[in-house]
Amino acid sequence: MLSKSNVKLINSLKMAKFRRQHQIFIAEGTTNVLDFIAGGMETEALYATRDWLKTNQSFLNKIKITEVSLKEMSKISALKNPSEVLAVIAIPDRLEADMSNVDDLVLMLDDIRDPGNLGTIIRTADWFGIQHVICSENTVDAYNPKVVQATMGSLARVQVYYQDLNKTLQSKPDYLKVFGAVLEGHNMMELAKPNHGIILIGSEAHGISKELLPLLDIPITIPKYISSRLNSSAESLNASIATAIICYEFRKK
Amino acid sequence: MLSKSNVKLINSLKMAKFRRQHQIFIAEGTTNVLDFIAGGMETEALYATRDWLKTNQSFLNKIKITEVSLKEMSKISALKNPSEVLAVIAIPDRLEADMSNVDDLVLMLDDIRDPGNLGTIIRTADWFGIQHVICSENTVDAYNPKVVQATMGSLARVQVYYQDLNKTLQSKPDYLKVFGAVLEGHNMMELAKPNHGIILIGSEAHGISKELLPLLDIPITIPKYISSRLNSSAESLNASIATAIICYEFRKK
Repeated sequence: MLSKSNVKLINSLKMAKFRRQHQIFIAEGTTNVLDFIAGGMETEALYATRDWLKTNQSFLNKIKITEVSLKEMSKISALKNPSEVLAVIAIPDRLEADMSNVDDLVLMLDDIRDPGNLGTIIRTADWFGIQHVICSENTVDAYNPKVVQATMGSLARVQVYYQDLNKTLQSKPDYLKVFGAVLEGHNMMELAKPNHGIILIGSEAHGISKELLPLLDIPITIPKYISSRLNSSAESLNASIATAIICYEFRKK
Repeated sequence: MLSKSNVKLINSLKMAKFRRQHQIFIAEGTTNVLDFIAGGMETEALYATRDWLKTNQSFLNKIKITEVSLKEMSKISALKNPSEVLAVIAIPDRLEADMSNVDDLVLMLDDIRDPGNLGTIIRTADWFGIQHVICSENTVDAYNPKVVQATMGSLARVQVYYQDLNKTLQSKPDYLKVFGAVLEGHNMMELAKPNHGIILIGSEAHGISKELLPLLDIPITIPKYISSRLNSSAESLNASIATAIICYEFRKK
């Protein structure tokens, strides 16, 4: 049974303010929920249908479970089509990324505002084995339900930080180069791609912010396809698409 | 001045049923609206703020214009943050793609359901010079306001068709090979990529449908990054991300 106070609490978690206050967030859907549990994240409560519980019981050791109907689920879900499971999970302590010893690729996001884009970027980072995503303080909150949904479980594996990007780039070691996605940079295909470095992606509306541009070591561009058949074409790529193509190209060996 | 009947009509266009009935759709934002006008699409009405009209007057020859305030705009906009311009545009006649003479890459989408994904795929196709996107009949409507928004003007340039994919693939000429994105296919990096062919992308939830799988000539996969540091990683990529990486790789020469 779902209590009124729980319905109220869970619904409040759609807003960043209440997630911050309670230091918890919601995850929905089997992949998301089981990936968070498998990742060892502290699950404070789990709401699921009888069928779901029957199938997944073995993963739910020591978790406080409430059996709910699909109708009850629709009262707490952030989804248009509620899934059979919703978990309330503790937000991990917010740490700053330590750049002093980085020997892998790191993603850095400069004010990504769209929850779908951030979630998709985290999922893509996971696919390409990029374990650290450093966000500017104005990037959308990674524990927003729409972000969590779009990560499809990858938020359980990828470490997401929020910090001042300017300071971080000013104090990073020299060997770590900053590759920034811009509209008129070096053709990414023709570039040597190291095994370590920072890939900096700008916001949907404004690209990389003016104060960060001078900190790029290598501005890079995904070449547009040019053909005599075409009059004109897209001005730019979506931020999550650009990120994915760059990650793909860097991981290609 | 915005009449009540116009507010009602424009709001009804958020639903597929009324778009079909009236054969019109809405586009918002400067890039989208100006790209549709530049593409020669029939603009039935345009609503914009005084400032926007002042700046863009020269593009608006022979278009029926209504000046509105931002407050009025919020009554007709499908966006959370309304832009300064909204156009009502005629939906082009629905044609079937003619596959008999294809000498370029064509995208084929098997039940893409998320409007953001379809819009992003159309925008990406435009960037990579892919002019034809053939959708299954259950793919989300390209004139859905969320799709239009995500295309960022590219829907004015890319031709989108809706038709039976099974029939289309059964009757296509032999020289046109079908490359399908699957989880366990040939490593896409190691494959010869022709200048023409069909790139088939499956739905977010189920991938390529069972009835189409036997029609693939070459099942392809974007390799996941494997490293001894990682325990596990994402199960799959978002559909629009997979499409983009495949288009990028095919256009790379």
